[in-house]
Amino acid sequence: MEVDVMSNISITTVDKSKIDSFDFENVKFGAKFTDHMLVCEYKNNAWQQMEIKPYSAIELDPSARVFHYGQAIFEGMKAYKDDNDDVWLFRPDQNFERFNKSAVRLAMPEIDEERFIGGLKALIDLERAWVRKGQGNSLYIRPFMIATESGVIASPSNEFLFCILLSPAKSYYSGKIKVQIAEHFSRAANGGIGAAKAAGNYSAQFYPTKLAQEAGFNQVIWTDSATHTKLEEAGTMNVFFRIKDTLYTAPTSERILDGVTRKSLIELAKSEGYQVEVRPVLVEEITKAAADGTLKEIFGAGTAAVINQIEGFSYKEQYYQLPELKDEECFALDLKNKLTRIQNKLANDPFEWTVKI
Amino acid sequence: MEVDVMSNISITTVDKSKIDSFDFENVKFGAKFTDHMLVCEYKNNAWQQMEIKPYSAIELDPSARVFHYGQAIFEGMKAYKDDNDDVWLFRPDQNFERFNKSAVRLAMPEIDEERFIGGLKALIDLERAWVRKGQGNSLYIRPFMIATESGVIASPSNEFLFCILLSPAKSYYSGKIKVQIAEHFSRAANGGIGAAKAAGNYSAQFYPTKLAQEAGFNQVIWTDSATHTKLEEAGTMNVFFRIKDTLYTAPTSERILDGVTRKSLIELAKSEGYQVEVRPVLVEEITKAAADGTLKEIFGAGTAAVINQIEGFSYKEQYYQLPELKDEECFALDLKNKLTRIQNKLANDPFEWTVKI
Repeated sequence: MEVDVMSNISITTVDKSKIDSFDFENVKFGAKFTDHMLVCEYKNNAWQQMEIKPYSAIELDPSARVFHYGQAIFEGMKAYKDDNDDVWLFRPDQNFERFNKSAVRLAMPEIDEERFIGGLKALIDLERAWVRKGQGNSLYIRPFMIATESGVIASPSNEFLFCILLSPAKSYYSGKIKVQIAEHFSRAANGGIGAAKAAGNYSAQFYPTKLAQEAGFNQVIWTDSATHTKLEEAGTMNVFFRIKDTLYTAPTSERILDGVTRKSLIELAKSEGYQVEVRPVLVEEITKAAADGTLKEIFGAGTAAVINQIEGFSYKEQYYQLPELKDEECFALDLKNKLTRIQNKLANDPFEWTVKI
Repeated sequence: MEVDVMSNISITTVDKSKIDSFDFENVKFGAKFTDHMLVCEYKNNAWQQMEIKPYSAIELDPSARVFHYGQAIFEGMKAYKDDNDDVWLFRPDQNFERFNKSAVRLAMPEIDEERFIGGLKALIDLERAWVRKGQGNSLYIRPFMIATESGVIASPSNEFLFCILLSPAKSYYSGKIKVQIAEHFSRAANGGIGAAKAAGNYSAQFYPTKLAQEAGFNQVIWTDSATHTKLEEAGTMNVFFRIKDTLYTAPTSERILDGVTRKSLIELAKSEGYQVEVRPVLVEEITKAAADGTLKEIFGAGTAAVINQIEGFSYKEQYYQLPELKDEECFALDLKNKLTRIQNKLANDPFEWTVKI
């Protein structure tokens, strides 16, 4: 990860930072951004020079492919500050790899490590003051790529813009949430783009999620599109189920995002002596376990939310309330605490997941 | 469709039209646009005043929802000029209805007829000189809507931009094309957004289409994601199959776009005495019909392409060449000729599909 980025980057800084007017105590996730952004164009079959510049509007032809054909991908990552004011990334190699997998699936150019990792290190280095220390605090990192070529022709663009935005973050959800298990709508199909962090995967969920919210739920847990019998993911989170003292989560597939928090939790939980089984989880076994009292916990796992506890779910008009466990009995809370302590450099990192900027 | 648009529209025209430098003989589909565009913002829960202004860039915050979550829909329509220099639309009510269905599925606001139909009539009225007469000539119309609210939060935008672009057109493809029947990749699933003209549906097809093109084919005919046994659509076109003297096409569904050209062709073909059956079409019956010589024609149908003849297809490593019919034996050519003559006002329109501007 040692890259000489400075030879291929132009930097223009703001005259005056807006950090003094930023309220770090009342942070709405993803709503406000730091002073600078990184941009890099792709044209003539090559990535051009990176540019760090004041956060500012993007100007595109109204026929740009991204507006018409949704050729766009992104990543979600976080940076953390330790007690020595050092700034750390969490498993950036995983996001870099996944970004390029998404790029291939969406017929977009892969990007090199110098630009993705090097570029974001250079940007965060400039914005160190925006990273706050303390468990749960972080700087959310949003790398994304959009198709910029003009022309309302349904074919891949030849021009792209890679961009990184930074947004101070606490945690994504507050409190436990209620979810609905999808019976009709679906998020992804075999042979589709569900495993890619593609823009179109998210807007497709907005309407079914809105219906769930109108019915009193916060999120939808998607089931497989072919049979609606297997539990998949929650759209912005992978999902874990605890039956008795075993954690179950679905294997990644063409339909399910290979979440970095998911894979970290699996590894962490195993190393902590928890029983973890990665295998298809059936709706039927979860409703049965809920009915007989062996279903103890459900939680979502994602970069934005880290871990989000689920208090109950509905399926076929029936609501299943999960038991109220004492905090010290919750696998979710224990794992969230242990993972965020590693991320925030408040605990040892035996996995070597954290990378210093 | 009588709407008083002028009271709710501001118009700014270009100083000098670029029409004199436009080469109407060598038109690349969707690549160049007329002098003006229509824009209308949605904010504070309401559509704002429409604006016709010189074609110009769109400026958006880099965190605008359309870049990250693909919340974007569009329509494709055409305007035609008759020998009296009158300009006509083809079934605009169908596109207006479908646009709003797409909007609902993508959690976007529906738009009123005054803005969609009235707005495009006002814009085309200003751009009459860009509509050329003659069979096959048209002005391609691209209404679209994008989510403009800033914030990298995976939830529906509260602000949108509706926009109409115009692009002089001949036809989308030239010559017959070869297609590949999808065996692994899929375009849409039950419970998904396949029936919506959503941006994300198109970029999802780019990679599989690229693979098909590298293998020597022009397009992919998608099969149902669950079993890959039923023929669905070709991504930018619905598909018709002629076995002996009967035309078959798949019914519309959650997975298949309700194409205006498709439904017009079904009606036209029936009125011309052709046998048409709308029912699921199995891959197996098409390969069998190809093998025993009863498969006479396959063609795609869409606004951009009108009708596109398919000369052969591949499935499971085998290539099936369709017979070379004489022009006068081709249902595709006959129907294309009859439909474009209605569209271009060179024939009577017993269906009352055409609407004068």
